[in-house]
Amino acid sequence: MEAINAVHTYLDALTRGDLDTIVGLYADNAHIEDPVGADHVVGREAIRQFYGKSIQAITGARLLGPVRVASNEAAFPFEITMNYNGQSLAMDIIDTFRFDQQGLVVEMRAFWSEANMRPA
Amino acid sequence: MEAINAVHTYLDALTRGDLDTIVGLYADNAHIEDPVGADHVVGREAIRQFYGKSIQAITGARLLGPVRVASNEAAFPFEITMNYNGQSLAMDIIDTFRFDQQGLVVEMRAFWSEANMRPA
Repeated sequence: MEAINAVHTYLDALTRGDLDTIVGLYADNAHIEDPVGADHVVGREAIRQFYGKSIQAITGARLLGPVRVASNEAAFPFEITMNYNGQSLAMDIIDTFRFDQQGLVVEMRAFWSEANMRPA
Repeated sequence: MEAINAVHTYLDALTRGDLDTIVGLYADNAHIEDPVGADHVVGREAIRQFYGKSIQAITGARLLGPVRVASNEAAFPFEITMNYNGQSLAMDIIDTFRFDQQGLVVEMRAFWSEANMRPA
């Protein structure tokens, strides 16, 4: 299933630090809200810059349960591990993706707060 | 934290079949989209009818990972078990809640499809 493949590709690319693959999942005019409540990051170029900043700290991304696909959207629980000032941290996140008819992500929303961080 | 308490109250009430407690979590003008992509259920009376139909089949609801709270929203992975034509089924779901300033849920969206069902 296309949506599930997109999620696996996304988490693999986060783990490998593969910025081109991540950006390639998004439509030209896509919106990112990460975390939910933050200013939207709009458009592929801004999305590239957004991930470019964070991806160097990320050391892994791992699905924590099944992807839930509903209509043209998906939600999935995952964990990222990262280096933050020399410390190894893990964070529990739930992302939602909304897809266009080409299977590209037009909206991503990331649910997390500092309460979801812990030493790893 | 208020949002996390609401999630625990919700899952406990689903397990106990406590319709009043479930409906009491929602604002008067709340919207439910369950599953995502379905027609919206709007307003407390319609929400009561919606849960009234499904709650009799539900035998349990269990959180499967930490609640992710971001701004005035929350996302959480959970499993419900249910009796369906004499069969015991489990289903993996992710719900998102959006809260108003009183801490009531104004929007609920449920991510799941039949692919998330399995014998239990």
